[in-house]
Amino acid sequence: MDSSPPKIIRAPQLGAPQHPSPLRHPDRPGVGASKFVPENCFVRQQLETLVGEPAGEEWLFEKAGPREKLFFDPAKTKAAVVTCGGLSPGLNNVIRSLFLELRLRYGVGEVLGIRYGYEGLNPQVAAPPLTLTPEFVEHIHENGGTVLGSSRGAQEPAVMVDYLAEREINALFCVGGDGTQRGAHQIAEEAARRKLPLAVVGIPKTIDNDVLYCDRTFGYSTALSEAQKVLLCAHIESKGMRNGIGLVKLMGRESGFIAAGATLASQEVNFTLIPELPFALDGPHGFLNVLRERMIRRGHAVIAVAEGAGQDLFPQRETACDASGNVKFRDIGLLLKQKILDYFARHGPAVGVKYFEPSYIIRSVPANCEDDILCDQFARRAVHAALAGKTDVFIGLMNSTFVHVPLALAIGRMRYVRVDGEFWNSVLATTGQPPRFYA
Amino acid sequence: MDSSPPKIIRAPQLGAPQHPSPLRHPDRPGVGASKFVPENCFVRQQLETLVGEPAGEEWLFEKAGPREKLFFDPAKTKAAVVTCGGLSPGLNNVIRSLFLELRLRYGVGEVLGIRYGYEGLNPQVAAPPLTLTPEFVEHIHENGGTVLGSSRGAQEPAVMVDYLAEREINALFCVGGDGTQRGAHQIAEEAARRKLPLAVVGIPKTIDNDVLYCDRTFGYSTALSEAQKVLLCAHIESKGMRNGIGLVKLMGRESGFIAAGATLASQEVNFTLIPELPFALDGPHGFLNVLRERMIRRGHAVIAVAEGAGQDLFPQRETACDASGNVKFRDIGLLLKQKILDYFARHGPAVGVKYFEPSYIIRSVPANCEDDILCDQFARRAVHAALAGKTDVFIGLMNSTFVHVPLALAIGRMRYVRVDGEFWNSVLATTGQPPRFYA
Amino acid sequence: MDSSPPKIIRAPQLGAPQHPSPLRHPDRPGVGASKFVPENCFVRQQLETLVGEPAGEEWLFEKAGPREKLFFDPAKTKAAVVTCGGLSPGLNNVIRSLFLELRLRYGVGEVLGIRYGYEGLNPQVAAPPLTLTPEFVEHIHENGGTVLGSSRGAQEPAVMVDYLAEREINALFCVGGDGTQRGAHQIAEEAARRKLPLAVVGIPKTIDNDVLYCDRTFGYSTALSEAQKVLLCAHIESKGMRNGIGLVKLMGRESGFIAAGATLASQEVNFTLIPELPFALDGPHGFLNVLRERMIRRGHAVIAVAEGAGQDLFPQRETACDASGNVKFRDIGLLLKQKILDYFARHGPAVGVKYFEPSYIIRSVPANCEDDILCDQFARRAVHAALAGKTDVFIGLMNSTFVHVPLALAIGRMRYVRVDGEFWNSVLATTGQPPRFYA
Amino acid sequence: MDSSPPKIIRAPQLGAPQHPSPLRHPDRPGVGASKFVPENCFVRQQLETLVGEPAGEEWLFEKAGPREKLFFDPAKTKAAVVTCGGLSPGLNNVIRSLFLELRLRYGVGEVLGIRYGYEGLNPQVAAPPLTLTPEFVEHIHENGGTVLGSSRGAQEPAVMVDYLAEREINALFCVGGDGTQRGAHQIAEEAARRKLPLAVVGIPKTIDNDVLYCDRTFGYSTALSEAQKVLLCAHIESKGMRNGIGLVKLMGRESGFIAAGATLASQEVNFTLIPELPFALDGPHGFLNVLRERMIRRGHAVIAVAEGAGQDLFPQRETACDASGNVKFRDIGLLLKQKILDYFARHGPAVGVKYFEPSYIIRSVPANCEDDILCDQFARRAVHAALAGKTDVFIGLMNSTFVHVPLALAIGRMRYVRVDGEFWNSVLATTGQPPRFYA
Repeated sequence: MDSSPPKIIRAPQLGAPQHPSPLRHPDRPGVGASKFVPENCFVRQQLETLVGEPAGEEWLFEKAGPREKLFFDPAKTKAAVVTCGGLSPGLNNVIRSLFLELRLRYGVGEVLGIRYGYEGLNPQVAAPPLTLTPEFVEHIHENGGTVLGSSRGAQEPAVMVDYLAEREINALFCVGGDGTQRGAHQIAEEAARRKLPLAVVGIPKTIDNDVLYCDRTFGYSTALSEAQKVLLCAHIESKGMRNGIGLVKLMGRESGFIAAGATLASQEVNFTLIPELPFALDGPHGFLNVLRERMIRRGHAVIAVAEGAGQDLFPQRETACDASGNVKFRDIGLLLKQKILDYFARHGPAVGVKYFEPSYIIRSVPANCEDDILCDQFARRAVHAALAGKTDVFIGLMNSTFVHVPLALAIGRMRYVRVDGEFWNSVLATTGQPPRFYA
Repeated sequence: MDSSPPKIIRAPQLGAPQHPSPLRHPDRPGVGASKFVPENCFVRQQLETLVGEPAGEEWLFEKAGPREKLFFDPAKTKAAVVTCGGLSPGLNNVIRSLFLELRLRYGVGEVLGIRYGYEGLNPQVAAPPLTLTPEFVEHIHENGGTVLGSSRGAQEPAVMVDYLAEREINALFCVGGDGTQRGAHQIAEEAARRKLPLAVVGIPKTIDNDVLYCDRTFGYSTALSEAQKVLLCAHIESKGMRNGIGLVKLMGRESGFIAAGATLASQEVNFTLIPELPFALDGPHGFLNVLRERMIRRGHAVIAVAEGAGQDLFPQRETACDASGNVKFRDIGLLLKQKILDYFARHGPAVGVKYFEPSYIIRSVPANCEDDILCDQFARRAVHAALAGKTDVFIGLMNSTFVHVPLALAIGRMRYVRVDGEFWNSVLATTGQPPRFYA
Repeated sequence: MDSSPPKIIRAPQLGAPQHPSPLRHPDRPGVGASKFVPENCFVRQQLETLVGEPAGEEWLFEKAGPREKLFFDPAKTKAAVVTCGGLSPGLNNVIRSLFLELRLRYGVGEVLGIRYGYEGLNPQVAAPPLTLTPEFVEHIHENGGTVLGSSRGAQEPAVMVDYLAEREINALFCVGGDGTQRGAHQIAEEAARRKLPLAVVGIPKTIDNDVLYCDRTFGYSTALSEAQKVLLCAHIESKGMRNGIGLVKLMGRESGFIAAGATLASQEVNFTLIPELPFALDGPHGFLNVLRERMIRRGHAVIAVAEGAGQDLFPQRETACDASGNVKFRDIGLLLKQKILDYFARHGPAVGVKYFEPSYIIRSVPANCEDDILCDQFARRAVHAALAGKTDVFIGLMNSTFVHVPLALAIGRMRYVRVDGEFWNSVLATTGQPPRFYA
Repeated sequence: MDSSPPKIIRAPQLGAPQHPSPLRHPDRPGVGASKFVPENCFVRQQLETLVGEPAGEEWLFEKAGPREKLFFDPAKTKAAVVTCGGLSPGLNNVIRSLFLELRLRYGVGEVLGIRYGYEGLNPQVAAPPLTLTPEFVEHIHENGGTVLGSSRGAQEPAVMVDYLAEREINALFCVGGDGTQRGAHQIAEEAARRKLPLAVVGIPKTIDNDVLYCDRTFGYSTALSEAQKVLLCAHIESKGMRNGIGLVKLMGRESGFIAAGATLASQEVNFTLIPELPFALDGPHGFLNVLRERMIRRGHAVIAVAEGAGQDLFPQRETACDASGNVKFRDIGLLLKQKILDYFARHGPAVGVKYFEPSYIIRSVPANCEDDILCDQFARRAVHAALAGKTDVFIGLMNSTFVHVPLALAIGRMRYVRVDGEFWNSVLATTGQPPRFYA
């Protein structure tokens, strides 16, 4: 069925792995019994096929998991973990499982916790790193946030590689979003230039769930659980008064996964607005009039809007950026609130708008059960990759299987809600909203 | 890379679909905009490939989702929903989404809720069915259990088909475990024999998550969340006294997914015992001695045991069955508790065993956020399938995509934890337990 | 020890109670066995005494509870329930227990649910009332909000009494805050003027817990639970970055009970600011400098501020009122945020402020376990009072015992956090903040 | 109104307090501003009064709280904390607040954490005590259990006082149930005999809430929250099948507070059985027949039974005791289950019984918000008492005010649900059960 040869995506490799993995003795108490992942094991990106039609190019990604041969001798290896960017539920779980896999499973001698993001790799501003211990990590997964602290913004790759080289660190785990992975890529490139034996392995972190080649980022499930609670509050508020409107601004800068997912979970939202789908406010088929029709018909409504939605409704696109390089957004929540109040003041009926902006509340809670498991999976695979000598990659998740994704391929690219796909279709089914709001 | 032609798994079809789907007008307010799933769209079961080695036979499963042409004219269609077997979180979500998709999206005229499982299709014993309404289903997803009631045990297919035929029901949705799907298959076969226009579509329901061709059953995520809480309690109890042992019996008759998943989520379990992996109690490498070594070393321990584990440790395999035909299990939890008490009484040190058996508590709670979403996805796809004239299938989940699985292929077959796979390997990593307990 | 005779506070009484209570047959299945509360049973307001010192005037309040003789014949009685003002967790519990006690215990014939607050008693604007049934109330306590709807603002007493008289309603239960109880008092006065057999019994409702003669209002415990979660999020955010400050604005217009109670519950707040205690921002002992000293010392801080705190810091006191007659407050949260940012921008170090304003999220959740119980207690005692012919009262809670509080005594008076008392002292102990911020 | 002079209950006092309290400087940052509790401040036990009738003897209890003069010089004082008996939510909160008040507020030099209950005061078997630090206690209140460990059973008072005297400990805080307070009393007596400057202050701990002179013990509120969840599960299970009966055994050895309180909170229980109220199983008015009548009428039922209920139904009262001296109970849950199954097998209809025994799950969770606050209040008052030289007392809670209760007065006495009181009456109202089950 496949006409052309598949495109094979391999992780960059520091050198030939020669050390036997300590995980290989299934009969020795205390170690694992799993099969190793062979180096020729790959995962298909393209899951669906149209029988009888010509297939497109197939991409195969290197499967993540424990390798039989390691590049590093664990006992002589020194590792470091850094967490960057905004909080996401599960950061502490990732730190903990990285440490436990490195130390208890592979026997790595020392694991450092870099403080406050990439800042901690710049000796000019760094707080000294923590040396992680079993006692230190024992309970950390029970809390949100990151015990290492975080920060936004880049540091000079050369400065950071100096720092790592001086301390003879062989494996750096970078937990963060697109900006962080870009930094990880620069570190890996600089280390390669210097021929340093440094494995740089990323774990993608974004509550927005918008990383390409990563079907699910950790923290997203927890974010949905929390957002679902807020949507239910909005529903209750909207029904507690005559003509109540609950308006909830949720996270989602470029993609609407949180707004869409929480809508599906709550089943109480009537309008979901996401960045992927521009919408008109005015006109007979515009959002305001459709909302008004619902209010007349049903007497209440709940609206979920992603923070990145409707940016074209502002007079001009804001171009300022924050320290991570993220575009700063205009506040669509407050704009919508004002537009709704104005519109109903003019056209009636009298409505009340209850506005919710729960952002930090959603992201600083502990990981839920799903994310507890997911974080553990990501972290342990990152360790397998680094010790096997893979570098300049992050751990991706493709069709429920973990893979190695070269950073060079992934950075700067995002995943969006497909507005002609089944996930979004479910949102339309649940909300009953029209597929498009147009003037 | 694939040498042999793939095996194509199609859903049985009642007849040629001729009615245009009401979902197809993207500009009409209130209806969806998604692309329809073409009839030649299939999903690969085999995701991984070993590059350079000969591939095995590839299986392709028909993708689930909305079809452009329907077999039934929705306005003239009558549907019924039945829930069978033990409770699983999300049953009410499934009932609700089935109803909403049938009624609000497709415009199906009448949807009946059959009472108390297949009993409700036997006029000899049936309580009268409920006619579902938007008001009735409004809040049902907020509670555990099933508003329709459930029961175990089979009814005569001919009797049930008589019942359905008399009431001119065209679509029957059967939510239940393997026994239920077997019953659905018999109904479908009997209807086919009579050439009745009856679509029988199953939605697999088992908290144990052990359905073949269904990577995740609804309720499993919620079960893990609840089991995780109990494991944490066991951990706390074990540390609240000298030499405390927290012993938790979890669900899992044939498979250990709940015990293994909850172990990963909690990160506090030291021994996880599942049906897939027999274990010896005695001898230097047996469970009891390894437990004793840990107690001496650490002073406390947590054990998670699946109810179906260690059945070979009983003098003889119990062969009695419950009304659903499930083999009744001997109580491994109580056996272990006694064996531990005896062993430590003999060999010391003095220990205390706190025994937990949370089963009903785990399964009767409302669905968590993940399951809220999953139930909605299963239910709406079941409606798409039935109205398109697919029958004698259930909705499966393959590599995160929903598919049609013919019941003839699926019933009587189960999914197990692969003890040489990465999921179980993660459990070994987390617990630190030896891969095998042998005498 | 008491020199002067105590002051005895009795509930106004519609007339002599003559009907035997149906609760009096302890042997009839389905009814209670409790002792009735004798009419001469009173509760001491003053609990503490200084031995050897002259005692002040003692106030005794009529104890609430079931009476042996009723003023109304339950079978011929018609009751109505109205909920007013902002949402508070437990409103639906109160509605449900009022109904169940009226209908199932006393056998009252009809119970109406008035829609959208006092609006529902004004035929010009009223939505028709609901007739409450066991089916309707079955699950309502599982949700936040009020199934009757609510509204702010007064209606003409004469209009409302006309409405009640026309429908021959004998007992009106008014669930709401101070404005609502003022309305209830006016209705009772108007009914008295007309010599109508109408009992008006209030149940105080304010999440702020600031009702005089009511040690605990329903919803307060739930509000604390929710506020505690938000404070923990703020703590996590403050530690997730260098020099992070978590600033949380909580409810509390005139009193700081929510801010103080949530501080005690969370144990993670460093500064709690309440309306009862004015504070200076500037100067060496002002809030900003003390905050700065902590930031230098500890690197993070959490601040809980009640919405009514620091109103004197605004150029001029805002005197606008909302529809309930509540003074509209200037936003102390945003002011503090700005002042902090300015101060640290000028004096260093660089800080980040994470601002939380969770108000609706806290009040629209379902009641927690404590409030579930409390609501039931309030509601059933309100029914006992009304059927015994008590009127123009609300149910108070004094030293953990329920009492009848005449509305004429209570309305317009509030309860405050005593800043020299032990509750506030505990807050100082927990936060470690100085007792006063002065210039 | 009071004819006889009140009985004044004072705490035993080690000697005249002479040291000024460090809490007294309201203007010094970091210390409190509260008024001290004068030594002549007492709290009335008797809250209710029958106007016009002769009053009984009035008891006045010494009010707890900070004293202006201390017996101990805090800087030279050494304290120790011990936790005994079964787990109760909030133990870690108590440990934490004791430490923080001792160290941060009073400036006490050293606080020891005794390991595993009174065992830790017996050098023959003791694990060495922990020296508590701010870092150690930082997060402990977020978890259930006790970080110190606990044990059951007594130790020789002389041995324990030797241990304390050798380590020059001046204040011992004993957190535990009746047996623990008995031990505390013996220690205090032995210390008094030796004229040691040792303050022994108890904090009553029982999830059962059955301590006389203590209206609310910590952990009870949390226990209710958890029990409420289980009762809801039982309700769901009972409705998920035809004629389902959910049977829940809850804690409560001598008193039924948990069963009664959880019934009120859940509002879904139909029969609540407590130790205070014997019940007949057989006969037309016996429990089984009344249950059967309900099953025929409603088709499902939920039963909450306290573990100490119905002990007279067993052939003979079990007289064995556990290590704490508690009488071991016969299992009323299993007896009821069997009796129900037998009765319905004989009389019909066919029923299913779902049995729940959640005990450890309820007691090992973290404290809820109410208990978080309560624990803090108890602990800080215990510190005030000890440093002021009060000894041989526990901190009681009387009509919502904290008091000193001499152990000599309290030990061996319990609080019961008053079956003719309003609390139990509310249970009857909610369940609709008859006041008595008799043959």
